[in-house]
Amino acid sequence: MPRTMSPKQIAASLTELWSPRVIAEVDDSYIKVAKVHGQFTWHSHDNEDELFLVLDGQLRIEMESGTVELNQGEMFVVPKGVRHNPIAEHECLVMLIERKTTLHTGSVVSEKTRSLDEQLRPLR
Amino acid sequence: MPRTMSPKQIAASLTELWSPRVIAEVDDSYIKVAKVHGQFTWHSHDNEDELFLVLDGQLRIEMESGTVELNQGEMFVVPKGVRHNPIAEHECLVMLIERKTTLHTGSVVSEKTRSLDEQLRPLR
Repeated sequence: MPRTMSPKQIAASLTELWSPRVIAEVDDSYIKVAKVHGQFTWHSHDNEDELFLVLDGQLRIEMESGTVELNQGEMFVVPKGVRHNPIAEHECLVMLIERKTTLHTGSVVSEKTRSLDEQLRPLR
Repeated sequence: MPRTMSPKQIAASLTELWSPRVIAEVDDSYIKVAKVHGQFTWHSHDNEDELFLVLDGQLRIEMESGTVELNQGEMFVVPKGVRHNPIAEHECLVMLIERKTTLHTGSVVSEKTRSLDEQLRPLR
């Protein structure tokens, strides 16, 4: 029997920051969770939208057109092609929904870039 | 500037039960919220997975292979082709993620069936 899961509990259990982990798939999309703190990196996804849902804490997403502030339970979709930079002043747990083809740092490769294999590795 | 949103607040504001409303899109997927209470209807989606995330309350999903119980903050993906029947003993707020092609009552048409136009109509 497939099991239910708590995205927040799984995100809380992660030890590495800014390292998204796939917790489920829905057709062509991955559901991921991450524990974040500090600044990520400016990037964009030319062909994919990206949904951020804050499970705990607060997340700021800087974009060239302005900045959004997400509190716990709030979500925002960064449209495809929009450069963005997520920032968490304090530790924050986030759920992401994005098409399986999405590279989490977009076309930018940095020390924060994680391969899909890393994102897919078993949680326990 | 696109706005942030609280799926839980939007779901709480709905007046009609079992009538999902689209709150966002992520590429080929819709993010929907619904207020549910009582029993839905047995159905399946032959070609689409369906994610349930409980925003408030509790949801039981009966399937032929067994039943899952979801508490607040928990999620479950009903795989494509699996007959299921969501039940909420008390009022429950839920977020759904599913491909845009998904019919919410699957191949079953009942008094609970809502057209996509109804699900897409503006919230305010």
